[in-house]
Amino acid sequence: MSYLNRANGYAPTGNVNSEPDLVQRPRFTNKVEVSLIDWMGRDGDIVNAARVSTKGAASLGMNEGARGLISYLMRNRHGTPFEHGAMKFLVTAPLFVWREHHRHRIGFSYNEESGRYKQLDPVFYVPEFARTQEGKPGHYKMTDSPGDLTALMEHELEYIATYAYESYDKMLKAGIAREVARMCLPVNIVSSCYVTCNPRSLMHFLGLRNAGEAQHEIRAVAQQYEAHFARLYPETHKAFIEGGRVAP
Amino acid sequence: MSYLNRANGYAPTGNVNSEPDLVQRPRFTNKVEVSLIDWMGRDGDIVNAARVSTKGAASLGMNEGARGLISYLMRNRHGTPFEHGAMKFLVTAPLFVWREHHRHRIGFSYNEESGRYKQLDPVFYVPEFARTQEGKPGHYKMTDSPGDLTALMEHELEYIATYAYESYDKMLKAGIAREVARMCLPVNIVSSCYVTCNPRSLMHFLGLRNAGEAQHEIRAVAQQYEAHFARLYPETHKAFIEGGRVAP
Amino acid sequence: MSYLNRANGYAPTGNVNSEPDLVQRPRFTNKVEVSLIDWMGRDGDIVNAARVSTKGAASLGMNEGARGLISYLMRNRHGTPFEHGAMKFLVTAPLFVWREHHRHRIGFSYNEESGRYKQLDPVFYVPEFARTQEGKPGHYKMTDSPGDLTALMEHELEYIATYAYESYDKMLKAGIAREVARMCLPVNIVSSCYVTCNPRSLMHFLGLRNAGEAQHEIRAVAQQYEAHFARLYPETHKAFIEGGRVAP
Amino acid sequence: MSYLNRANGYAPTGNVNSEPDLVQRPRFTNKVEVSLIDWMGRDGDIVNAARVSTKGAASLGMNEGARGLISYLMRNRHGTPFEHGAMKFLVTAPLFVWREHHRHRIGFSYNEESGRYKQLDPVFYVPEFARTQEGKPGHYKMTDSPGDLTALMEHELEYIATYAYESYDKMLKAGIAREVARMCLPVNIVSSCYVTCNPRSLMHFLGLRNAGEAQHEIRAVAQQYEAHFARLYPETHKAFIEGGRVAP
Repeated sequence: MSYLNRANGYAPTGNVNSEPDLVQRPRFTNKVEVSLIDWMGRDGDIVNAARVSTKGAASLGMNEGARGLISYLMRNRHGTPFEHGAMKFLVTAPLFVWREHHRHRIGFSYNEESGRYKQLDPVFYVPEFARTQEGKPGHYKMTDSPGDLTALMEHELEYIATYAYESYDKMLKAGIAREVARMCLPVNIVSSCYVTCNPRSLMHFLGLRNAGEAQHEIRAVAQQYEAHFARLYPETHKAFIEGGRVAP
Repeated sequence: MSYLNRANGYAPTGNVNSEPDLVQRPRFTNKVEVSLIDWMGRDGDIVNAARVSTKGAASLGMNEGARGLISYLMRNRHGTPFEHGAMKFLVTAPLFVWREHHRHRIGFSYNEESGRYKQLDPVFYVPEFARTQEGKPGHYKMTDSPGDLTALMEHELEYIATYAYESYDKMLKAGIAREVARMCLPVNIVSSCYVTCNPRSLMHFLGLRNAGEAQHEIRAVAQQYEAHFARLYPETHKAFIEGGRVAP
Repeated sequence: MSYLNRANGYAPTGNVNSEPDLVQRPRFTNKVEVSLIDWMGRDGDIVNAARVSTKGAASLGMNEGARGLISYLMRNRHGTPFEHGAMKFLVTAPLFVWREHHRHRIGFSYNEESGRYKQLDPVFYVPEFARTQEGKPGHYKMTDSPGDLTALMEHELEYIATYAYESYDKMLKAGIAREVARMCLPVNIVSSCYVTCNPRSLMHFLGLRNAGEAQHEIRAVAQQYEAHFARLYPETHKAFIEGGRVAP
Repeated sequence: MSYLNRANGYAPTGNVNSEPDLVQRPRFTNKVEVSLIDWMGRDGDIVNAARVSTKGAASLGMNEGARGLISYLMRNRHGTPFEHGAMKFLVTAPLFVWREHHRHRIGFSYNEESGRYKQLDPVFYVPEFARTQEGKPGHYKMTDSPGDLTALMEHELEYIATYAYESYDKMLKAGIAREVARMCLPVNIVSSCYVTCNPRSLMHFLGLRNAGEAQHEIRAVAQQYEAHFARLYPETHKAFIEGGRVAP
């Protein structure tokens, strides 16, 4: 179709924006972004928190026994020592990821861009490859699709995003409130959010979201979380893996 | 394109479904729906829970002193007696409402339709009137717009919804996974969710969401919640109002 | 010792209370009590909550497929459908049990007797048998003790409880505030509490507390919870057992 | 101490410890202790978290507008930006304080000494002054008592603590399990606990516990928390005070 010239790449042709300032040109991405902004605590703090139960306030830091203790706590689901840390991330991901992410209620704090308070930027997520599904809900097998399905997907997602953002922009310029105009935007528009959690709540997230059943995009967020987690808490992460990725 | 003739106005023409199974005709609504499905507890149970502190396990039910006790608990933010009840609702609302609603984490349980597990129905929310905003974030004054802005809004929202659902349907029929195809759907598509809360968590919701700063659509959900709440817990609701709508 | 005449049973001799109204005679119990006061929801409601994900708002109640669905949800740790119910218990147990119980923060609501607001009754928990422990923390093997250890335990617990309550009473009668006087009371004094939870949070409790590592007394509470739970939610309980008693 | 003379009544003489290792001599304290162990976040982080709503991911740190923003968030109960920090404390306080403290469930993590896993040390809290109460529950007026009531209180609390710890020790030495022997210990025995919270959950605690209605001892914990909080988050603390000490 003429409105989207694929010969020139995935982006809509200049026609959309032929009048200056009429509307920002949409941008497309197949990435989610995770930055670790701040953190508190290391493996040794988990050990100290656990040892207050058995030794009172004396704390000993990491040593060989400490590794065994972390492993013991994990296996026996003694979860509270894993709560005395914090990790703060800044994450950019599409709305359909946020809808899943925000369902994690316990040990997670969020502050996300608001479509009521600001004009959302025209950045949209389009997967690198289309996927097909087989199997029943909860047991889907997803397979990367051949090129023609990917081309169809790109075409459709970019086409809708482009027109939707144009409609959004038109409504805003006509004076319609942001909270109304945004109603036309698709769930692959990206949004930034601060996410703060603790090692325990993060492991719960990782167990469910860095897993085969999880959708590719939230898994991509989870994988980046897990890389940070493994670096900050190497012994805890090791015990999490060895324990079958079940949060304590 | 034939099925959406902009020259003829903004609603899709009847042609949309002239070919069987091509795509479901989109439906538009300006309503949110709330049904009370089940509940546990009444005013007297709050009184009994509070009195265990002062009288042990003996319980007395509602009486004049009980009304004063509810009012006292509310004013002094003794919140726990208001947690020993439950209300289960089935709510149908657009995704942008769910995005705000799901941010209520404590004392709220959710099960919502999944765009990964089922094909979403083509039902989209379009406000009865467009709105304009004045003022700064957090102090917006929203005003219902004159007819031409409402006409523009209806046109744009219906136009994008119609095209988006057609894209969605096309991708599904081509074999693309639901979790990918849904990425083009706008945030005014409606979705159903079970919501279970307790009187305390509901009052917290009502204090923030049945309030002037809240967006019209989540306020419409909150108003229906509040009508059920007032009927189930008349004394508690009265004390909530008298206390300035601050949850204990 | 003369102050506690075991020939007359476990209770202190009348000498303690020889002056009328000086102090209430302590009572001893080796039981914890759990009453189900109210509830909302059955197995079918879990099924309906889960099905909203896949079928939207239509609900179907229990049937053969429903049993499989509950089992599937449990095995795959899809926990939220198990939150749309409520059970309210009135529980009487010693303070050392409450100290463990109150550590269950999520999905549990509590209102307990207050030592600041009322004079606590002189009822104290004494185990039926003394126990000895072997092994390391977290792997204790507890064994019921021979009669002489049980006699020693009864003697000591009853002796301290009796004198402590007498001190408490003396301080109260002298005009000392309840919140100060109660500081002498031992942690085996019993207290009543309303406890409201949902099937998911209760299963988490049962997995940890109706288990070999749990202390006998909190396990006795958990066993009574579990009996009520099995009766109200037979299919869910069955799936919980079959899944190795791991809460979803 | 002269007031504790077995010859004159029920208190243990110095003989109690004349045989080495028979039993530790009890120690008494009228203090609670709070140490800040670790923290994450400052005022500027609250501002950044809030601004993601209105400006996306760009963050600006503290400045004059930032102060106004914190105040605005506090007054309008926008609580989530106050959750992206953490403070970890090590606190030593009597059990009756922990029983109140642990009732704070949301945004609080705890690891406390366990009477099942270790022998508790014989350290007991005795207030500096006895108190008398006037008024109804929830409106008590507490007054420091004249010297004779304080002397009575000290006598009774020290007497019971001494005997209880002696009983505890005797049961342990006879081979009774720690979890049973500890049942005789009074609620003024002190215990150490790691407490991790965030600025929002801490303000909720401070609003209820550093307040006139709170018991002196938990207020003493809260006051020390508040001193740390005011130092780490001066602007947030100022806004909390100006807003009437209501957590957002």
